[in-house]
Amino acid sequence: MTQLHAVNLHDYAALAQERLAPEAWAYLAGGAGDEATLADNAAAWAALKLLPRVLRPLHPGHTQVELLGRTWAHPIGLAPVAAHGLFHPEAEAGTVLAAAAQGAACALSSQGSTPWAELVALVKDEPGRGPLWAQGYWQGSLTRTLALFEQAAKAGMEAIVFTVDAPVHGARDRERRAGFVLPAELSKANAVLGSHPPLPAFEAPPLCAGLLVHAPTWAELQALIAASPLPVIVKGLLHPDDAMQARDLGAAAGWVSNHGGRTLDTVLPTAAALPAIRAAVGPAWPLIVDGGIRRGTDVLKALALGASAAFIGRPAVQALAVEGARGVAHAIRLLRDEFEIALALCGCATPAQLHPGLIHKA
Amino acid sequence: MTQLHAVNLHDYAALAQERLAPEAWAYLAGGAGDEATLADNAAAWAALKLLPRVLRPLHPGHTQVELLGRTWAHPIGLAPVAAHGLFHPEAEAGTVLAAAAQGAACALSSQGSTPWAELVALVKDEPGRGPLWAQGYWQGSLTRTLALFEQAAKAGMEAIVFTVDAPVHGARDRERRAGFVLPAELSKANAVLGSHPPLPAFEAPPLCAGLLVHAPTWAELQALIAASPLPVIVKGLLHPDDAMQARDLGAAAGWVSNHGGRTLDTVLPTAAALPAIRAAVGPAWPLIVDGGIRRGTDVLKALALGASAAFIGRPAVQALAVEGARGVAHAIRLLRDEFEIALALCGCATPAQLHPGLIHKA
Amino acid sequence: MTQLHAVNLHDYAALAQERLAPEAWAYLAGGAGDEATLADNAAAWAALKLLPRVLRPLHPGHTQVELLGRTWAHPIGLAPVAAHGLFHPEAEAGTVLAAAAQGAACALSSQGSTPWAELVALVKDEPGRGPLWAQGYWQGSLTRTLALFEQAAKAGMEAIVFTVDAPVHGARDRERRAGFVLPAELSKANAVLGSHPPLPAFEAPPLCAGLLVHAPTWAELQALIAASPLPVIVKGLLHPDDAMQARDLGAAAGWVSNHGGRTLDTVLPTAAALPAIRAAVGPAWPLIVDGGIRRGTDVLKALALGASAAFIGRPAVQALAVEGARGVAHAIRLLRDEFEIALALCGCATPAQLHPGLIHKA
Amino acid sequence: MTQLHAVNLHDYAALAQERLAPEAWAYLAGGAGDEATLADNAAAWAALKLLPRVLRPLHPGHTQVELLGRTWAHPIGLAPVAAHGLFHPEAEAGTVLAAAAQGAACALSSQGSTPWAELVALVKDEPGRGPLWAQGYWQGSLTRTLALFEQAAKAGMEAIVFTVDAPVHGARDRERRAGFVLPAELSKANAVLGSHPPLPAFEAPPLCAGLLVHAPTWAELQALIAASPLPVIVKGLLHPDDAMQARDLGAAAGWVSNHGGRTLDTVLPTAAALPAIRAAVGPAWPLIVDGGIRRGTDVLKALALGASAAFIGRPAVQALAVEGARGVAHAIRLLRDEFEIALALCGCATPAQLHPGLIHKA
Repeated sequence: MTQLHAVNLHDYAALAQERLAPEAWAYLAGGAGDEATLADNAAAWAALKLLPRVLRPLHPGHTQVELLGRTWAHPIGLAPVAAHGLFHPEAEAGTVLAAAAQGAACALSSQGSTPWAELVALVKDEPGRGPLWAQGYWQGSLTRTLALFEQAAKAGMEAIVFTVDAPVHGARDRERRAGFVLPAELSKANAVLGSHPPLPAFEAPPLCAGLLVHAPTWAELQALIAASPLPVIVKGLLHPDDAMQARDLGAAAGWVSNHGGRTLDTVLPTAAALPAIRAAVGPAWPLIVDGGIRRGTDVLKALALGASAAFIGRPAVQALAVEGARGVAHAIRLLRDEFEIALALCGCATPAQLHPGLIHKA
Repeated sequence: MTQLHAVNLHDYAALAQERLAPEAWAYLAGGAGDEATLADNAAAWAALKLLPRVLRPLHPGHTQVELLGRTWAHPIGLAPVAAHGLFHPEAEAGTVLAAAAQGAACALSSQGSTPWAELVALVKDEPGRGPLWAQGYWQGSLTRTLALFEQAAKAGMEAIVFTVDAPVHGARDRERRAGFVLPAELSKANAVLGSHPPLPAFEAPPLCAGLLVHAPTWAELQALIAASPLPVIVKGLLHPDDAMQARDLGAAAGWVSNHGGRTLDTVLPTAAALPAIRAAVGPAWPLIVDGGIRRGTDVLKALALGASAAFIGRPAVQALAVEGARGVAHAIRLLRDEFEIALALCGCATPAQLHPGLIHKA
Repeated sequence: MTQLHAVNLHDYAALAQERLAPEAWAYLAGGAGDEATLADNAAAWAALKLLPRVLRPLHPGHTQVELLGRTWAHPIGLAPVAAHGLFHPEAEAGTVLAAAAQGAACALSSQGSTPWAELVALVKDEPGRGPLWAQGYWQGSLTRTLALFEQAAKAGMEAIVFTVDAPVHGARDRERRAGFVLPAELSKANAVLGSHPPLPAFEAPPLCAGLLVHAPTWAELQALIAASPLPVIVKGLLHPDDAMQARDLGAAAGWVSNHGGRTLDTVLPTAAALPAIRAAVGPAWPLIVDGGIRRGTDVLKALALGASAAFIGRPAVQALAVEGARGVAHAIRLLRDEFEIALALCGCATPAQLHPGLIHKA
Repeated sequence: MTQLHAVNLHDYAALAQERLAPEAWAYLAGGAGDEATLADNAAAWAALKLLPRVLRPLHPGHTQVELLGRTWAHPIGLAPVAAHGLFHPEAEAGTVLAAAAQGAACALSSQGSTPWAELVALVKDEPGRGPLWAQGYWQGSLTRTLALFEQAAKAGMEAIVFTVDAPVHGARDRERRAGFVLPAELSKANAVLGSHPPLPAFEAPPLCAGLLVHAPTWAELQALIAASPLPVIVKGLLHPDDAMQARDLGAAAGWVSNHGGRTLDTVLPTAAALPAIRAAVGPAWPLIVDGGIRRGTDVLKALALGASAAFIGRPAVQALAVEGARGVAHAIRLLRDEFEIALALCGCATPAQLHPGLIHKA
């Protein structure tokens, strides 16, 4: 139990910082460079001004969305974060149980502390649970990458989240100053057989060192989608043209993300990137968004601007650090309630009624 | 008597914070979410730059406005706030006496600590007093809502302020952290007979819980206006289309408000919403505005941009907390004098001479 | 002698604050309301970005300007400030001697501590001195106002600065909190015979109290210009239409000013008002500007945007407070040198070469 | 060795401030006036938002650029700074060795602590070194200026950097307050024979004192280019017309600079000046840029907006102050690695692929 009763996601961040070792906190909370994008992501949602409507029928209302062939209880999900074992002994098990209990979508990193199969088994039969997705990177070859994702399919995952915005590690000064190195024993639960060249670290510059030979291109994405045992969601889109290309290659959905400001700094915040991407890909193709979502009003704005769902990364792991599964469930509940209230206060009975006109054009 | 002599409304806020218990202060001063709208409301008025005129005739001058069939000594009023008894033993009696002494309009909450009839009786025959209005919410049915407002009419109120922007409570984190609950004995003075379902609290999400069955729609507003014993002022308008609809349904006036930033956060500040609403409803329909009015220049700008009158919420109650009726009267006087000086310094002899050209277009 | 050697005008402000009694500092440094205009005035000059030119001929160069029938050594002057005796025993004598030594224009308030005649006598025959102007307000009637200005003419003043932006006092909260009252014995050196109703103070609202019967209008200005023994400069212009009207009535020059942010708060800063005024009145009519001029680059920008000269108010009096005439002379010298350097670094040999293209259009 | 391990250029600034005497720090870190341009330079790069592309081929990749007839390992160089001996005993020798080891271009000030010939001799035969340039000012006559630059040619320099934005010293208040004077023995290593009038100091205003007789104009630049033994790079351009004129007179390259905010304050930041200059001069003429480059993303943005290379001034000298040549080499390495990572994360295999579309248009 915590002394400060958390009433919003900010509280969980503050409580987690108190509890975690400085290096773990640096890894969890930090971003690339001067952390401008980290701050901009959250500020960009907050800066959007709502123009709510009144006296509209709110009954019968609900927060459900239809997405990727399934009904979600609400449009909030958990973005993939590596190595939950760093933050709490319950690790990914705590996270996945909490997500299931709150009906939230859950994307689980390939660099987790717990094998996917174990995690899916924990919640597979939970009636109200949200979708379970496996997230991974290109593994140097199509064969190896498919091996990873077949592992996910076999475990019972419903989709693949394929991250394309981190062909090399970003320069995370906070981590480097704290001397943080991701412990192998907490991040290799889903590693494929054989030794894969790790993502090139900052000290070994990628271009000259030739490590980028292994970085994937659109051709590799196309092959991956064709051969994948599961629908592929392409994560890390900021440019409308890239989103259109992913859609045209058959990706099941796009994920607007700047990797939470952890790879490249001074990047366009996702709230600013989303509208042009929605306009480019048309109304039908599902779009996930993450980056700076901290309030129910942020979720609402994301959907009003064209997102199909909004995902949180750091906040859920911060809640895990504070109270394990109980903290994560509470954090999702807080955000979900805030979203529901915001929906009603904007005059919308359901998420489907959200539209860009609810955001004031400055 | 206070040690710091208040020379403006900010001083009353500082003095009230010193005097009130932390929970009462959290309830009075707080807003929804991160309190962005609370701050934006005041900042938006301050950010408007005046372009004053010189050497214009200022005599004979006055601050009177004609509004809703009556002459007001000046265009400043007190917005409804619940449970004045929380802040000072004089409660709403102190407020209403001060308003009457200063000729200010006074809108009294249905969730007050003192019955409307008692309050009206105190000042009904005061020659220079301003209008007295009763504010309330939808009571779950037309019958119950009319019962509340007939009570207001019987008490001698002159108009009804019907609040439409809070079908559910907002998430006020500051209150929740302070563990504040509005005491029933200080907020039920005007409760109608029978037990009414209270506004759904944050912990019971409105849409799923079905409580919004009771939220009013435009149809209910229309019926209410048709049957109301008093003119109805619709409070909580931010969108021009909603304002036009309220006007077309026969509302006596519109009230541009975001509930002082207490329901939904990151909403458009009222100073930014007002011009488009005035443009939409035309010059004749009266428009009240509140939200962040702290200076005489704010009142002047509100009128220049199309408001018929400008109301303050928290500042009057803060002055009540500091010195009861005497504080409230002084606070109104300060604001009124600031307005009068600003009027003269802008080259206007009367409020009717105010116009949008006095605000610099950036 | 001071311990901190002042190298710019900011230093004189800091040093003056250390030396002055809090009430005198509040009077000198304070502004109206929340002092937003006070801050905006300086910030608006700083925010203008220079686009300097290189390799242009700088020889022969100088800082002289031709203005109101006279060559000025440089375009910097001292704006009128009341009661210099409050700040240093040398009072206006110190100021006027310093201005003369530095060739700066000097406008002396009618509410000074020293009679105009004494001040003019001190420097009249100084060969390099700048122009000497007498500043005053409407005195309730044309006769009384002319009496004041004939006194100025007799003393040897060269022009009248007629202030039109303060028909009533502004609400200066800092002064009121400090309990400051302008001492009559330090501000009546030029008072005309007979007891004149003082400017209405804040506690006596102007419109209702009828004091504005005495506020001047365009008709009074016209009569004053017609009868004035000296050229009349109209001070307090912010709107282009008002500037054009003053020019058309025969004023010798206009003075773009918001009274240093001391009367009305949240007014357009003078840097923002100047370009439209210059565009409206055409290139020939002289325009003085004050408000927030603290750096040589501010003087340069003022001239580039159409001002004929730039005046400082508080900084000179702050330097007086620190070291009397010696401080004022040094302050003018610092600003003049900064201006000269800025002129050369912008690629201009003389002030006449300054033009709006030196300011970047954002 | 330092206690804080520097992981970025900001760290070197902090460490240098700890180690340097206050006067040397004031000289190195300070800027003109209120140091607004100093801050704006860095902020302007950071404010540009990247819009990276994904899944593009990154192999084979490199950071090389072709510039002024030579292949550079990367587009980062060291801008000229006077008197390195003030900051570390290794002085310019440390700097030039570090630059050579890291393949960085190095521009060496004529006001250095070590003769050019000695410096060139140290690294001339280093295979991977970058270009070596000599920087200087007009020396009062063409003969004297050519004498200086012939000295550079004889030493083995490859180009002349001719600085045109400082015909007079700026007003650097921080230096003046610290009482700093550039020691002759540390800044005269390349002085030409005979005593030359030094640049006019602040206390001797340039225009009136007639010292600007010696400031060069376009005619002098033309003569210098015609007679120069080496290609001439014109440093200090902010206006597109000046850049075109330099190009048309035969300058080998232009250098967009505001002298690091050290001469004139509130100048346009170089990041804002660069695009219009590139548009004006066309794609072929090489453009160097400096001012506020602190991150690899800054280098990337500079090239995306049309720069051919990006130079750092203070950061390299700060690293020199901390650890001599070793610090400088590490600082260049950090920036180079950041640039390489940013290049890959923007989807570009080489600097030649950078283009304005990578910067979001707000």
